[in-house]
Amino acid sequence: MSVSVAVAGASGYAGGELLRLLSAHPEFEVVTVTAHQNAGQPLAAVHPHLVSLRHLVLQETTPAVLSGADVVFLALPHGASGAITAHLPDDVLVIDCGADHRLTDESAWAAFYGGEYHGAWTYGMPELRLAGGGTQRTNLVGATRIAVPGCNVTAITLGLAPGIAAGVIAADDLVSVLAVGPSGAGKSLRTDLLAAEILGSASAYGVGGTHRHNPEVVQNLTAAGGSGVTLNFTPVLVPMARGILATSTAKLTASAAAVREAWETAYADEPFVHLLPAGTFPKSGDTTGANTVLIGLAIDERAGRVVVVSALDNLVKGTAGAAVQSANLALGFAETLGLPLDGVAP
Amino acid sequence: MSVSVAVAGASGYAGGELLRLLSAHPEFEVVTVTAHQNAGQPLAAVHPHLVSLRHLVLQETTPAVLSGADVVFLALPHGASGAITAHLPDDVLVIDCGADHRLTDESAWAAFYGGEYHGAWTYGMPELRLAGGGTQRTNLVGATRIAVPGCNVTAITLGLAPGIAAGVIAADDLVSVLAVGPSGAGKSLRTDLLAAEILGSASAYGVGGTHRHNPEVVQNLTAAGGSGVTLNFTPVLVPMARGILATSTAKLTASAAAVREAWETAYADEPFVHLLPAGTFPKSGDTTGANTVLIGLAIDERAGRVVVVSALDNLVKGTAGAAVQSANLALGFAETLGLPLDGVAP
Amino acid sequence: MSVSVAVAGASGYAGGELLRLLSAHPEFEVVTVTAHQNAGQPLAAVHPHLVSLRHLVLQETTPAVLSGADVVFLALPHGASGAITAHLPDDVLVIDCGADHRLTDESAWAAFYGGEYHGAWTYGMPELRLAGGGTQRTNLVGATRIAVPGCNVTAITLGLAPGIAAGVIAADDLVSVLAVGPSGAGKSLRTDLLAAEILGSASAYGVGGTHRHNPEVVQNLTAAGGSGVTLNFTPVLVPMARGILATSTAKLTASAAAVREAWETAYADEPFVHLLPAGTFPKSGDTTGANTVLIGLAIDERAGRVVVVSALDNLVKGTAGAAVQSANLALGFAETLGLPLDGVAP
Amino acid sequence: MSVSVAVAGASGYAGGELLRLLSAHPEFEVVTVTAHQNAGQPLAAVHPHLVSLRHLVLQETTPAVLSGADVVFLALPHGASGAITAHLPDDVLVIDCGADHRLTDESAWAAFYGGEYHGAWTYGMPELRLAGGGTQRTNLVGATRIAVPGCNVTAITLGLAPGIAAGVIAADDLVSVLAVGPSGAGKSLRTDLLAAEILGSASAYGVGGTHRHNPEVVQNLTAAGGSGVTLNFTPVLVPMARGILATSTAKLTASAAAVREAWETAYADEPFVHLLPAGTFPKSGDTTGANTVLIGLAIDERAGRVVVVSALDNLVKGTAGAAVQSANLALGFAETLGLPLDGVAP
Repeated sequence: MSVSVAVAGASGYAGGELLRLLSAHPEFEVVTVTAHQNAGQPLAAVHPHLVSLRHLVLQETTPAVLSGADVVFLALPHGASGAITAHLPDDVLVIDCGADHRLTDESAWAAFYGGEYHGAWTYGMPELRLAGGGTQRTNLVGATRIAVPGCNVTAITLGLAPGIAAGVIAADDLVSVLAVGPSGAGKSLRTDLLAAEILGSASAYGVGGTHRHNPEVVQNLTAAGGSGVTLNFTPVLVPMARGILATSTAKLTASAAAVREAWETAYADEPFVHLLPAGTFPKSGDTTGANTVLIGLAIDERAGRVVVVSALDNLVKGTAGAAVQSANLALGFAETLGLPLDGVAP
Repeated sequence: MSVSVAVAGASGYAGGELLRLLSAHPEFEVVTVTAHQNAGQPLAAVHPHLVSLRHLVLQETTPAVLSGADVVFLALPHGASGAITAHLPDDVLVIDCGADHRLTDESAWAAFYGGEYHGAWTYGMPELRLAGGGTQRTNLVGATRIAVPGCNVTAITLGLAPGIAAGVIAADDLVSVLAVGPSGAGKSLRTDLLAAEILGSASAYGVGGTHRHNPEVVQNLTAAGGSGVTLNFTPVLVPMARGILATSTAKLTASAAAVREAWETAYADEPFVHLLPAGTFPKSGDTTGANTVLIGLAIDERAGRVVVVSALDNLVKGTAGAAVQSANLALGFAETLGLPLDGVAP
Repeated sequence: MSVSVAVAGASGYAGGELLRLLSAHPEFEVVTVTAHQNAGQPLAAVHPHLVSLRHLVLQETTPAVLSGADVVFLALPHGASGAITAHLPDDVLVIDCGADHRLTDESAWAAFYGGEYHGAWTYGMPELRLAGGGTQRTNLVGATRIAVPGCNVTAITLGLAPGIAAGVIAADDLVSVLAVGPSGAGKSLRTDLLAAEILGSASAYGVGGTHRHNPEVVQNLTAAGGSGVTLNFTPVLVPMARGILATSTAKLTASAAAVREAWETAYADEPFVHLLPAGTFPKSGDTTGANTVLIGLAIDERAGRVVVVSALDNLVKGTAGAAVQSANLALGFAETLGLPLDGVAP
Repeated sequence: MSVSVAVAGASGYAGGELLRLLSAHPEFEVVTVTAHQNAGQPLAAVHPHLVSLRHLVLQETTPAVLSGADVVFLALPHGASGAITAHLPDDVLVIDCGADHRLTDESAWAAFYGGEYHGAWTYGMPELRLAGGGTQRTNLVGATRIAVPGCNVTAITLGLAPGIAAGVIAADDLVSVLAVGPSGAGKSLRTDLLAAEILGSASAYGVGGTHRHNPEVVQNLTAAGGSGVTLNFTPVLVPMARGILATSTAKLTASAAAVREAWETAYADEPFVHLLPAGTFPKSGDTTGANTVLIGLAIDERAGRVVVVSALDNLVKGTAGAAVQSANLALGFAETLGLPLDGVAP
């Protein structure tokens, strides 16, 4: 007997990707999809690529519509999940793809988001190494409220956490630059997201450490054992619909061999995170549509820095795939159930 | 009476861009174009976009064919310029777009290139600030042998040199990540340069400080007054034919105001390098086809780092435009003659 | 107990896509992968996106290596399948993604391909309507030798066949122009397939009816009942890794209502081919990674022509998906088994 | 003494391209730029690529602001030029890049545009062959009101007119499919123009002969001598910022040699329109930034059709370049003055 699922905010890119994954999942059945502006439309009008779900119609996003489902995925604008969740039963599994419940530090919330602070939920990054040993996946088993990490956050965190946890890199002068596709910005009608603006061009935004994902990375790497974690990161928008390629660097505090060993150990048994052989580096396109993170590692002896290149699909492991992976853990399914490992490439 | 020009290696991307600029230049006349594999073909078969020069035919790249021109531009593979140049008269202006004559330090050459060391020529970056005051442009006046900088080098150097020269940033822990288009790799038949591989994907190469442009940036920033210059840089290949967007960062050693002032002062009167207003950052596409560098600057107070984003067209200011600009200076023409300022955007 | 599968030519794009689909298929197990130049390499070196199959190593493409598998998929250059197939047992299911066994007319083979004619195998397009009623799927049940259609062929044929079969359009003046991605040309080291050449540009090839897929469409539409089938078709290479969007047009011979009805009837029960509502037209990207064809239909009353826009993924429904779909039918599995319906979009 | 120029609607893509060309033109000086929503902003905030004009500020689009200039270029939404032009002196040269004054047939206007009919101005396509002999350029000399053709219209018309004028193709069953970039749709905030929607995908619009450019092509080809001109045309949006590649086809009514000769004769002396050698076909990217049209021609003997592939930059020869070229003719300058011939490629 399958688990019934509702997706709120189904007309956006994250919502669409949740539906694509959930539709192929053997234990979930999508029964309810909701939207705001597009409520009342057939799903096929908004997401013609979701052929398997073309029988669905978008409804209004209200607690009444969402209740009744065993699991509710929220893919709403920041700040919108509180009003919904307050009206859902405690035993419904709620998985929020937005930022509202990610930060444990209210002052960080105030500094980067502002507005009402909603408190933190169980953090949906199973592979995050924790200072005391083990990973975050233990905390997800049986959880009923889960906050899905930000996409850039996942790329940087999974890139650097093994070195932080093993104490082989310094945490206090991290620099990360990410090539990112425009789907990460959502289906927003902004001039800078028009195809004519983005085709043939690269541009940086959130320059100077102002991006909201900054405190979330700091929180993660602190949890991994980092002390005085400081990160400068810059996302660069490039002409690919999906994908993140994060180039992250930190000062070395150990030998080259010890450094590589830290990552090898951390990810040896992870189903979705893979360290590539020495000398090889990932392409973001190799993770398209998959819940996979590919990582390449190099040491710059001259600069005394490790360089970690991590690739993922912002809509899958960066959002919807992490949500489903966390749901699998919360509900006691196999963690990998229904999640593609192989990217759609080229 | 116009100056006669020969372009060796005319069938590649750098060669084609030299021809496009030279054809529109009021003082130069292209009389000779040479190639290797494509010798004997009409130029129009290789560069159908160069309509104004479709009367030309590609000849063999030999000293005999090239001699007779007042100026010879070399757009050859690394290592190929020596054999040609040895046979050209001393008073012919020779401008080498390759790497053979860029490095003044033979040990750096040995470490990153290897093979015979050819010695350094006058370096073709007019805007480079020099430790003793002034810029490199003075050295270019009357020069007869000029080495054109590497494209990534120009983006990083012009991004960071003002801060180094003014002493407001530390030179010993520079990190730079560049989004670059595949035309920078030339017209090479390599699987990783196929369109199907690059469309929809970003990938890093030369990771770990191994890229050959590294010692050239160190040389430049040392010339600008940097002490113990150390750079970690990573180019990331993204799906745009042309363009570089460099995100470069350095530790602050002065106040935010002093930092911005350093860049403002440095580029206030530069015709081709422009600092954007605070809070705005460049798109690489805004420089397409132009000899322009656009720079945005931000300060990350938390991380204690300045972040400089610099955009240019790798084939113009990164190669062919710098070559023509240097030729203008060498021959006593106005520095800006024949060089487009406005990008072809969107 | 799963069916063992070998894929010959596994290092190319079609081979890689076969592996992606087969790996996710519940009844197939990939036991052997072969290549030519890449033999001896781990599959992960050639296809890093195929994480689930990274334990495999590429072997030489020989009959001995391939025999033993229950099913052999061939993704070889044209002309290479004959030598292999002759040495495989008759009861092994062989599915050829190349052109060698598609054409029933030897003179058409001679005119467009040349070289030895290999004879036609059962044609792997289940949805093709046949003049006598029914579809080609019946012929595929129990087949042991299957020729997979060309990708452009599938887009044009499935676009026009319903109208031909229903007699509502004329078959003698068909015009089709296709926007296609470069993966359709394979992983060939050709200058015109370099990313720098294709990014930012569209170009036509095979202009003037010379493309080898022409006689195959004629064969199909003749099978569908067309008389004097004549097609002018032109593929246009555009900057997207995958996908085909075919715009096909034919003279009307019936009323607008009768025309739309022909397509509605033909595809009402097809699992993979879907007619969109009137006034809507497909995007090729909506089929990425899926075995789906999306079709939009309009009538140009002024010109007396129907215009059919059909979208598919050249590597899935255009090649590897059609191969798996045909294998499902041949072996008695559900036709849709293991084949994704939902595209990876955006 | 230079000619003073005002550009109305300067903040859009057509307006920006007009400014880029005018800024490089030796006889024009841009004195006034106007906008609607962006009035009051520095031009550099809207078009950072126009470095040479960064001293300008956008003003309101009113007759008072525009009057005083010797030439006024209008790059306004359809329907907006009438109210402006009525208040400009008769001797000011007004060049409208919009559709308001293109159609000579009021009923065609009513059928495809609707609203008030404004009457036709002198048509700005110098190369259009006229039935009585000669070309449209004669009519442009001394004109004071000029309507710039539509971008798709130019690609199709210049592709087919020579054959129509020479009587070697039939005019009554023309089919044209165009690969077009999204800049042709302007800087409109529409979901379907977002980068995430367009990257990796091709899609058709205006399917079924509904595109407003249809009657304009019919008008042109009738002027060229066509009888009963009927056109089915479909634009296909592809992931490139600029450019049009039109594949146009018509029934042959003469021998292959006579057909090729018609195009050769027509364009032998044209500065901006070039027929490529037999067997070669253009890439749209070869015309980027240039006022050039490249044409390839093939004959499909089986289908009895000629196929003409024409490439141009929609913002240059498709809009702003045609405007400047027409202005040159109207004012008695050399037709080619200030217009680039060479594309920015790759």
